[in-house]
Amino acid sequence: MTAYHCDLAWLGGEGAERDVLVVVDGDRITTVEEAVAEPPEAAVRLPGLTVPGLANAHSHAFHRALRGRTHRGPGSFWTWREQMYELAASLDPDSYHRLARATFAEMALAGISVVGEFHYLHHGPGGVPYADPNAMGVALIAAAADAGIRITLLDTCYLQGGIGVELDDTQRRFADPDVGAWDARASALADSVPADSPGVRIGAAIHSVRAVDPPAMATVASWAAARGASLHAHVSEQPAENERCAEVYGRTPTELLSEAGALSARFTAVHATHLAHADVGRLGASACWCCFCPTTERDLADGIGPSRALRQAGARLTLGSDSHAVIDLLEEARAVELDERLARGVRGRHDAAALLRMATEHGHASLGYPDAGRISPGCYADLTTIGLDSVRTTGTRPEDAAAVAVFAATAADIRHVVIGGRVVVADGRHTSIDVAGALGHVLR
Amino acid sequence: MTAYHCDLAWLGGEGAERDVLVVVDGDRITTVEEAVAEPPEAAVRLPGLTVPGLANAHSHAFHRALRGRTHRGPGSFWTWREQMYELAASLDPDSYHRLARATFAEMALAGISVVGEFHYLHHGPGGVPYADPNAMGVALIAAAADAGIRITLLDTCYLQGGIGVELDDTQRRFADPDVGAWDARASALADSVPADSPGVRIGAAIHSVRAVDPPAMATVASWAAARGASLHAHVSEQPAENERCAEVYGRTPTELLSEAGALSARFTAVHATHLAHADVGRLGASACWCCFCPTTERDLADGIGPSRALRQAGARLTLGSDSHAVIDLLEEARAVELDERLARGVRGRHDAAALLRMATEHGHASLGYPDAGRISPGCYADLTTIGLDSVRTTGTRPEDAAAVAVFAATAADIRHVVIGGRVVVADGRHTSIDVAGALGHVLR
Repeated sequence: MTAYHCDLAWLGGEGAERDVLVVVDGDRITTVEEAVAEPPEAAVRLPGLTVPGLANAHSHAFHRALRGRTHRGPGSFWTWREQMYELAASLDPDSYHRLARATFAEMALAGISVVGEFHYLHHGPGGVPYADPNAMGVALIAAAADAGIRITLLDTCYLQGGIGVELDDTQRRFADPDVGAWDARASALADSVPADSPGVRIGAAIHSVRAVDPPAMATVASWAAARGASLHAHVSEQPAENERCAEVYGRTPTELLSEAGALSARFTAVHATHLAHADVGRLGASACWCCFCPTTERDLADGIGPSRALRQAGARLTLGSDSHAVIDLLEEARAVELDERLARGVRGRHDAAALLRMATEHGHASLGYPDAGRISPGCYADLTTIGLDSVRTTGTRPEDAAAVAVFAATAADIRHVVIGGRVVVADGRHTSIDVAGALGHVLR
Repeated sequence: MTAYHCDLAWLGGEGAERDVLVVVDGDRITTVEEAVAEPPEAAVRLPGLTVPGLANAHSHAFHRALRGRTHRGPGSFWTWREQMYELAASLDPDSYHRLARATFAEMALAGISVVGEFHYLHHGPGGVPYADPNAMGVALIAAAADAGIRITLLDTCYLQGGIGVELDDTQRRFADPDVGAWDARASALADSVPADSPGVRIGAAIHSVRAVDPPAMATVASWAAARGASLHAHVSEQPAENERCAEVYGRTPTELLSEAGALSARFTAVHATHLAHADVGRLGASACWCCFCPTTERDLADGIGPSRALRQAGARLTLGSDSHAVIDLLEEARAVELDERLARGVRGRHDAAALLRMATEHGHASLGYPDAGRISPGCYADLTTIGLDSVRTTGTRPEDAAAVAVFAATAADIRHVVIGGRVVVADGRHTSIDVAGALGHVLR
């Protein structure tokens, strides 16, 4: 049993509560008490604002190595993809383990307690499977454990280079021979993880309507349904994807996924940027999650998705740092509101509490952890403490604390991170990894 | 004489140069030498990437007290303005000095060596002048000196509450009785500053077409022309301003300013968000500066200005943190490119070197310091060093250094700041002010 005494804690409202005592047993919160002015002597004091652990619902860990290297010069999403493929071609299970370990540790420093890893870099050069065909996925799972964060590995089905397009050399590393082979490989990985594993879930992903044909989509959707697993897909990130889909199938990507049985409360539409009006209704009516990755969507010139309309239709939003040009879920949260303001010319389309819920409760639930992302008895003991003594955050009144967290703080303000009851970050430092050193080493 | 040895320095290109020795005499750079592998023993080592001092070309210092307090709930620019007015009503020269000193010190920590302070909060309650009618301006100038940064005080003419609208109670504190009174007051302030002052310039500002009528605009423009002073104006920040201007004058704000003789290479159009096509040509043809304040323009739901079109037409861009919800010129720089990507769907409209020039050379020049913002002999000795050992910036190759500075680093990565030859920030700490403490005190 450990007691944490939070100067301020965000418990779901617009403001924050004072003197909140959170008692933790093992990896779970047992009690939460407000207004405890005189905490027990043994309580660990958390100065600042404590929020639930943040959830990074969409990650491609290896993209971290592209930071700062792919922003120069003109181009588009498609020219960026060429640079990304070049990097992908260079990794093996060992080097990917080192890169992902450092990247996930950077996430821990940013207050992230779970990552949804959209994993498609499965095989060796030329598409030759490793001795363990899940060696890359296993490396990612080990990296998350090393970094002290939980992972939902979204094992991604990838079968073709585009609609009616052959796989190129790099894409062969992403692809299984057919959806049956994907099923066998993903099943083997899922069966290797104990059902009660505290830190690992295996979900599924349909890479996109570009990379997976409709019958295969249906197979992946059935696999996820049979296992009650999370199912993610990139949806309408770029207009070109919509155009090609309409040309070949006479449908939007969302319609196609809907017909394949993919939409449900376990489904996450990643990006959901260029949606038809009816798509918004479809995603909402199925109570899907929509994962916005605004810093990536800015970087790749994707556009601004209909975040407010999706929420109004019944969808729930989550957040991802995706390509990791930036790893800062607070920046992602404010960007959802700020980009909506740019697109619509009105403020306050998502309030601070709604944005924090995207970054916490919704993200965890979308990754198969409904019992996380809230500071509440029975939930995972994930506590992320934001310093309120930096030049960015000082002078904060309790009633403004949620707004300061979302609109003014950055990842650099994260001071203390408890994940599943373990202290992973103390005083801004990872407790077991020299993160900048590890990143510097793998990026050399 | 002090020699600084920069591991990497950005000297204007796409990449950075290695082992750059910068020799400083008094407040100026005397020599810059590249590839000095063995620097003199007495040289001060600057690890990381050194760039010229950053220029914050548009600031309202008192808005800093609104951070975190005005982002909640729905509303618009206009409802935000009410909250801003409430704060303005509470300040006097002493309290404004304390607030501005802490705010400018936060700017120093963010690597900013000069601020363009768009100053309109001139008078006491009810519009009664202080004993010294420039007491507020003097307080701002003193605050910048305390913080160790240079200032261009843009003394702002403000005469009416809107086109054909009376001043309200708060606005009376902004307004002079007529443009003659503005001229007398601004002249007294300008005459009190020695022509060779190393740290202070007095410029002029036309608050906006809302607050200044065309004959008065012409007077302010003449004042600035006669003194060779910088002239700034808020231009087309909101569609409502354009609509009212068209209704009453049958012209765009830019046309009106042009007819008043305001446009020139000393003029800065602040925001320049909702421009008519012909306005872009006008601002370009006059080689005006256009100051983008993207984090504020996001926050206030202003929209995305035509940054690329303006540059193509001949205008040069500068950057401002304006309302100070965020003080991070690197974030402003990347936002110009990223918001342009959102608006146009293409990457690489402004490369990293162009964005860094906006943040440095252009900003200084627009504020009347053409001899600053470059690491070059004869220029002000302003050196801002970005750490390349943080989790955000580690692993940077010299050829990517400018891109990393703009697209990945944040104000939290600024380690060392020299302004006019004086060390103002060392190891991330202000050398004379406990900035977070000072901010915490004034924001209480």
